[in-house]
Amino acid sequence: MALNHPDRLFPVDPASRDLARTLYRHISDLPILSPHGHCDPRWFAENKRFPNPAELFITPDHYVFRMLVSQGIALDDLGIPRADGSTPESDPHKIWQLFAENYSLFRGTPSAGWLDHAFEHVFGLEEPLTAANAADYYAHIDQQLAQAAFRPRQLFERFNIEVLATTEGALDDLRWHKAIQDSDWAGRVITTYRPDAVVDPEFEGFQANIATLGELTGEDTLSWQGYLRAHHTRRAFFKAHGATASDHGHFTARTADLSTAAAEKLFQQALSGRCTPQEADLFRAQMLTEMARMSLEDGLVLQIHPGSFRNHSATVFQRFGRDKGFDIPTQTQYVQALKPLLDAVGMEPTLSIILFTLDETAYGRELAPLAGAYPALKLGPAWWFFDSPNGMRRFREATTETCGFYNTVGFNDDTRAFCSIPARHDVARRTDCAYLADLVMTGRLREQEAVEVAHELAYGLAQRAYRLAGDVV
Amino acid sequence: MALNHPDRLFPVDPASRDLARTLYRHISDLPILSPHGHCDPRWFAENKRFPNPAELFITPDHYVFRMLVSQGIALDDLGIPRADGSTPESDPHKIWQLFAENYSLFRGTPSAGWLDHAFEHVFGLEEPLTAANAADYYAHIDQQLAQAAFRPRQLFERFNIEVLATTEGALDDLRWHKAIQDSDWAGRVITTYRPDAVVDPEFEGFQANIATLGELTGEDTLSWQGYLRAHHTRRAFFKAHGATASDHGHFTARTADLSTAAAEKLFQQALSGRCTPQEADLFRAQMLTEMARMSLEDGLVLQIHPGSFRNHSATVFQRFGRDKGFDIPTQTQYVQALKPLLDAVGMEPTLSIILFTLDETAYGRELAPLAGAYPALKLGPAWWFFDSPNGMRRFREATTETCGFYNTVGFNDDTRAFCSIPARHDVARRTDCAYLADLVMTGRLREQEAVEVAHELAYGLAQRAYRLAGDVV
Amino acid sequence: MALNHPDRLFPVDPASRDLARTLYRHISDLPILSPHGHCDPRWFAENKRFPNPAELFITPDHYVFRMLVSQGIALDDLGIPRADGSTPESDPHKIWQLFAENYSLFRGTPSAGWLDHAFEHVFGLEEPLTAANAADYYAHIDQQLAQAAFRPRQLFERFNIEVLATTEGALDDLRWHKAIQDSDWAGRVITTYRPDAVVDPEFEGFQANIATLGELTGEDTLSWQGYLRAHHTRRAFFKAHGATASDHGHFTARTADLSTAAAEKLFQQALSGRCTPQEADLFRAQMLTEMARMSLEDGLVLQIHPGSFRNHSATVFQRFGRDKGFDIPTQTQYVQALKPLLDAVGMEPTLSIILFTLDETAYGRELAPLAGAYPALKLGPAWWFFDSPNGMRRFREATTETCGFYNTVGFNDDTRAFCSIPARHDVARRTDCAYLADLVMTGRLREQEAVEVAHELAYGLAQRAYRLAGDVV
Repeated sequence: MALNHPDRLFPVDPASRDLARTLYRHISDLPILSPHGHCDPRWFAENKRFPNPAELFITPDHYVFRMLVSQGIALDDLGIPRADGSTPESDPHKIWQLFAENYSLFRGTPSAGWLDHAFEHVFGLEEPLTAANAADYYAHIDQQLAQAAFRPRQLFERFNIEVLATTEGALDDLRWHKAIQDSDWAGRVITTYRPDAVVDPEFEGFQANIATLGELTGEDTLSWQGYLRAHHTRRAFFKAHGATASDHGHFTARTADLSTAAAEKLFQQALSGRCTPQEADLFRAQMLTEMARMSLEDGLVLQIHPGSFRNHSATVFQRFGRDKGFDIPTQTQYVQALKPLLDAVGMEPTLSIILFTLDETAYGRELAPLAGAYPALKLGPAWWFFDSPNGMRRFREATTETCGFYNTVGFNDDTRAFCSIPARHDVARRTDCAYLADLVMTGRLREQEAVEVAHELAYGLAQRAYRLAGDVV
Repeated sequence: MALNHPDRLFPVDPASRDLARTLYRHISDLPILSPHGHCDPRWFAENKRFPNPAELFITPDHYVFRMLVSQGIALDDLGIPRADGSTPESDPHKIWQLFAENYSLFRGTPSAGWLDHAFEHVFGLEEPLTAANAADYYAHIDQQLAQAAFRPRQLFERFNIEVLATTEGALDDLRWHKAIQDSDWAGRVITTYRPDAVVDPEFEGFQANIATLGELTGEDTLSWQGYLRAHHTRRAFFKAHGATASDHGHFTARTADLSTAAAEKLFQQALSGRCTPQEADLFRAQMLTEMARMSLEDGLVLQIHPGSFRNHSATVFQRFGRDKGFDIPTQTQYVQALKPLLDAVGMEPTLSIILFTLDETAYGRELAPLAGAYPALKLGPAWWFFDSPNGMRRFREATTETCGFYNTVGFNDDTRAFCSIPARHDVARRTDCAYLADLVMTGRLREQEAVEVAHELAYGLAQRAYRLAGDVV
Repeated sequence: MALNHPDRLFPVDPASRDLARTLYRHISDLPILSPHGHCDPRWFAENKRFPNPAELFITPDHYVFRMLVSQGIALDDLGIPRADGSTPESDPHKIWQLFAENYSLFRGTPSAGWLDHAFEHVFGLEEPLTAANAADYYAHIDQQLAQAAFRPRQLFERFNIEVLATTEGALDDLRWHKAIQDSDWAGRVITTYRPDAVVDPEFEGFQANIATLGELTGEDTLSWQGYLRAHHTRRAFFKAHGATASDHGHFTARTADLSTAAAEKLFQQALSGRCTPQEADLFRAQMLTEMARMSLEDGLVLQIHPGSFRNHSATVFQRFGRDKGFDIPTQTQYVQALKPLLDAVGMEPTLSIILFTLDETAYGRELAPLAGAYPALKLGPAWWFFDSPNGMRRFREATTETCGFYNTVGFNDDTRAFCSIPARHDVARRTDCAYLADLVMTGRLREQEAVEVAHELAYGLAQRAYRLAGDVV
């Protein structure tokens, strides 16, 4: 048996499986649109080799190392850098061996599927990873990484990626995107405007960030109007580096629509460094509505990603810093939270707001009914912990009956694990084909409709929702 | 292929499908009991023809037009009347064409199934609706609507409806029900007591409504006891027009059981027009318990429908008014909310309280455990956004293991889309047969038990829970 | 057909069913580990016969009698003792007949499966129970109960139970466990430390309980340090009677980590009998963290069972007392609630904290992400209302993709219905094999991996998580 089952994720009923396979054949070769993710643009600017298997597959991927940690393996032993910059374990061979010895922990998880897919389809491996073959695995992958065909740009092309969006903070100089633009390489790597550091009064260094924002834009960012103009300017700068979207990772989905006077006063309070948690929350809420208004003007798509309790473990945060696998979803409500923004701009048919959630209970209860009514709203795909076969299936089952397929936006891989991108899109395509096959088999969709919808889910919806065709805005 | 798959909604596994088909054959011809809905009794009193296809299928059905709106089509272009009475687009041919051009939006939704069922089984159409055949579709349906066999009473009979409950406000004169009763037509169209306008202090015109309630009943509705007696009187009036149930659409499921003195004081506060939102909420809560006590006396079934955030879009509400597809479900809790009412009357075996929810998380966590313990409680079927194949399946899977089948009440169509009634009941019957077939195939139910349960789900439970046999109370 | 389908709970697709059957054959004969339950240790100490079928199957099992009550049968008529000690109906034949006449209420519920399994596999019955054969059923079971082979110890052995944990309050003298230890019987019946009565200031008799705790341990339990030492002493006493775990049934999952001074002050407030509900809640929260710290020292596993609204019906509580089927799940949050405890000890790899929930929405949103990160946390199985085929399936589908199999702990039967223990474990094993078969059929797991995982889910995980091998701590 190959490392990956050729009919994986298809229905088990033979007739349904045949149909899913047929649908999949229509879309399996479509180019990848990756409109939301966290790859490093520097890879494609410099096109250097990836350093080694451990730094490719383990240390940057919190999906992988948190599972090992959950079973008692120390972050230190996995080569995760400490907040003070030290790295007690720096031998990638040892880290890889530890990973391989515990590979059974990933049974039943999407990580196992993504890793096996990359092992086979990127590196040509055919045996399951074990403690016994870990060293051979390492040597094989490392040897391939040394070859020109395994450089970032060459993999990008081999993966058939049409667009790859990265995510940069509002103050980023976008030098790597500029370098890619200035190069002779034709790959389309675009940025996304992520202004958390300058819209969240509780972000580290908020006041200094606002000052920097003023310097970068030549605006008086100590005034509310100057601050808003500075956002306009930065958004235009990001658009010039390919951005078609902004992204907002607030703790809640709260929005507000204050009077100008009230917003100005709140902004001054935020600048003072003395605002209460309630005021900080209200300021973030107000800024979502401001961003939506700017989107109406400049056409950037607005993405709202709420509901993650970041850095839950005080111990891990103190020793290792952010993004170490300890971000935990929380209950999230949207109905009251989004009303101010929706009352302001929700009926605008030219606006594109994409909602994500880590609280699956909101799919059917809140998100699909909202997206199935407001023209400005669409639903982002199953996200993060739910970027998985069951997670995607639950997303479709909970949303389709209320908002249909056309108020959703295709798939996001949302990853910094570059080699997992083809695997993740393949999971989405197979899972959607399985779902569509089931609809056809139960008389809820005609086969020709399923072919059309499969194409939309794999390509068309993302292209239109994220305005990637280049001629939409 | 016919417009509707003959085995739709049955399991895909061949043996399971055979069994589901067998179960379905036992119940597919049972008469329809529709104990909760929103059809207009005037249709059956006057028995005039339905005006045209657009006014039959599109403009009255917020399931249909909100989906079109969600993709940027203006309510004005769909012939939805504005709050000021104007209707910018009034050509039903144009509205129908716009609907047909966008019919693919309904793929995967129950609306597609209901519409296709009505197109085929009511109007004899066999081709899927498209932009190209929209005009022919329109002409065909319109021509049939002109025939005597397509008048409301004739369709009622053809649909094999045994009882159809409509819903009227407490102040309604029930003239159309009286006209039906006084006619020589034998169809059973009954009313339901919906007193929101006189139990909710925040309802428009509450004080005037209370005054009208006094006039209609000859009671002093400015006194708490007179107000309660007026409800008694109106309930008896509704019973005389066939009502077997009352219905209560509060925002939450909160109940209260205040002392008479406290209730009286709160009622005076409500009458004063100066009660706070908290007091208004408490008054509604108290009235649910009062209604339950009245039900103990007069035998009306008490239906509680909480959890809808009505008229979410301020823009749409201002321009178009209520019920325009912008009612959004919210998180709803039942355990603490219902305790006062249940402590008062929950152990009464002659009381029938039917609970609905728009928050599916409550099915297994709260509603099934409550209904599986309290003799007064039963669970209404999957409601509104969840009146769908997946919604019904989730309802059964989340409730059956805890409260069984016999604490549920069969199917409600809850619709104002008359031609969808056979389709909706057919979906429920098929979906239940699929679920039962799965239980049999996995050894959780014997086939003969499944036959009996299928009959109960399609007919018996609704008849008993809603006391429709006429000899139960 | 036998009373129980030989392929029950396996997938319906023939190839999947074959595979599930194969997996099941690998594990169906494994001994039962029952690390959490509510059987009476006296049964095994005295080894007397069970009195009669009604007292074996109906009166002690709130799953059974609450369903009958929900359909209007009086608790009095089911032989449930009143709070005042009286029992209006005491004829077990009549109670059994009433049960049999209403046996169809259990269709589709796990109770039907457990009962039928016990009827066939414990008592050799082959006909479904009906009103007509109720008397024969009774006579047959009663006659068997009179035989030596049906005594508790003999059934324990026949059920192939390797370990059975019971649950005793902190003040219990554990006399029946001592008697079992002192006997010549080799069966392993162990206790569990359940200190609710001495950690919950709102428990009836809290102050007297604290005094008794002092007497039993010789500690000054009116001082905070003496109180903590008394817990240490009692935990050691429970360990000497086999305990490997403690269990905590708080209303919420809230934890706290106060300073010693603040904890001491709060303890004095609790002792005073004047603490507010908020203070009582905080004290319980603090005690979870204290218990976790003690677990770090003495190795007892910490079980947290939050979220049940106990004794919901005031009427039933007043007339019949606790545990009468009116405990209702409520919404439960874990992310903020557990943070104080997790910040204190969550990264300790030698600690074993097992989380349960009655709020299934927490599985994927909160519990799996927490258990998939913190080494101290593991997830208990689907609990109480969700100890059912669909409940277990939802548990696996919502948790596996995030925390894998190895952050779960196998099955708990959590029952006081002794004869249902083999049935319950059989349901868990079959349901897990069905799930694993589906993963294999859809290419998400290799068959050999599934064999290994099936064994872990049925035996290995429980043995390790509950430290039952005897050589782990």
